[in-house]
Amino acid sequence: MKITSRKNQLVVQSRGLLREKRLRDEEGLFAVEGVKLCLEALSAGITPKWALVSETAAEKFVEAVREIEQSCAVTVVSDDLYDYLSEQKTPQGIFLAGQILDKSVNLDRILSSGKILLLDCVQDSGNLGAMLRTAEALGIGGVILGDGCADVWSPKTLRASMGSAFRLPACAVDMAGAVKTVKEKGFAVYAAMLDDTAQRLGSFAFPEKSAVVIGNEGHGVSAEVAGLCQKVYIPIQGAESLNAAAAAAILCWEMSK
Amino acid sequence: MKITSRKNQLVVQSRGLLREKRLRDEEGLFAVEGVKLCLEALSAGITPKWALVSETAAEKFVEAVREIEQSCAVTVVSDDLYDYLSEQKTPQGIFLAGQILDKSVNLDRILSSGKILLLDCVQDSGNLGAMLRTAEALGIGGVILGDGCADVWSPKTLRASMGSAFRLPACAVDMAGAVKTVKEKGFAVYAAMLDDTAQRLGSFAFPEKSAVVIGNEGHGVSAEVAGLCQKVYIPIQGAESLNAAAAAAILCWEMSK
Repeated sequence: MKITSRKNQLVVQSRGLLREKRLRDEEGLFAVEGVKLCLEALSAGITPKWALVSETAAEKFVEAVREIEQSCAVTVVSDDLYDYLSEQKTPQGIFLAGQILDKSVNLDRILSSGKILLLDCVQDSGNLGAMLRTAEALGIGGVILGDGCADVWSPKTLRASMGSAFRLPACAVDMAGAVKTVKEKGFAVYAAMLDDTAQRLGSFAFPEKSAVVIGNEGHGVSAEVAGLCQKVYIPIQGAESLNAAAAAAILCWEMSK
Repeated sequence: MKITSRKNQLVVQSRGLLREKRLRDEEGLFAVEGVKLCLEALSAGITPKWALVSETAAEKFVEAVREIEQSCAVTVVSDDLYDYLSEQKTPQGIFLAGQILDKSVNLDRILSSGKILLLDCVQDSGNLGAMLRTAEALGIGGVILGDGCADVWSPKTLRASMGSAFRLPACAVDMAGAVKTVKEKGFAVYAAMLDDTAQRLGSFAFPEKSAVVIGNEGHGVSAEVAGLCQKVYIPIQGAESLNAAAAAAILCWEMSK
């Protein structure tokens, strides 16, 4: 039986999870769209709660739907209703709600790795997702997000991370406290910023246990956090600055070498 | 006098330039929104054609408007009309149309530099803009775009480039032909891709005259182009691949060192 009503409880809830952080936090659930991302979530070991597929998608993505059905209920909705539900202009027609991982338990795992990325108020979901994807690809052991970062569990972050957000150990904490903890564990912590004491990237080798702090897109690393760190800068010319995700890619690359 | 009608010719034309490549190509004009980007265009020496500002913006951005008025006519439109015109959710209320630079004249300038970035069917405007910004910041001498790349003059590319698109020498040509030309000028040309003959990035030093080819987000570098190039790969783990803009950032960084 296919659902067609906008008032259907599952539709209301699914639509809300895609759009509102408050709802995601309250219910401990995230939501993603698209065949690839739904399957990435499953293969990363996420606990799925329910799935919705449009009539067209049910016919088009038979195998994917079968795979999802093995771990949770899949409900068919009319194409129009899927369009209403979706955040995307041209949706594929597959939606999955899953359980948010308690990332706070990850700090020990992250600290047992050799390289860490710390994000201080990175506010753009696209940037955040891209950084998670890059960090995983380059073998960074984990990502620590400070208060004020974009939501790791927003659909946009999950999409930009191409599923890395499901796999990479990450945790959200107070940034200044995290920097202190990371330093106590023997890591050299570098804030990416330009000041008189900043070392030029490439002019030194990162110690085996290293961490880099990337700051806010507009304001950089906060003064409190910067005061706890060594500084590193990427020499640039012409353009005023690098995009935060591009800077993170270059810094992770140098750390991972 | 302020314009309030959606049928006003300037409004119709401005709205079209923001949305349609065909119109931009026909008229040889581009369009941008936002105080910063409009001023970047002027200071890069672009020839402005006209500007539109919302009533609110005219009061709020007095200095910027005065600066724009020195080089072209500024017309005030109602806030509602600006919202209709704009591509953005919460527009600042400043629009500028300017003359598209004939980037084809740039090939000689690009070839006289030491480092070149070549883009083979990079289709996402956000990626393209980010790559231009990164390339300029890292001192790459120019960017060669193959047929099939996103439009350099789309508002999204210009925005993501943070103005670098106005300043960085770039040209759009047939990619295979460009690779041959670049090689004839003594550049070592590397396609970013994984194959048996690819060298690991970091395991060799780029020659003084080097160029890197970044391929399409989904399909990578085309076979024809790859056949003309040496190969380089960025060692990754976990994630399936790097975002094209992140890969470009790392490759430009290594080339620029």
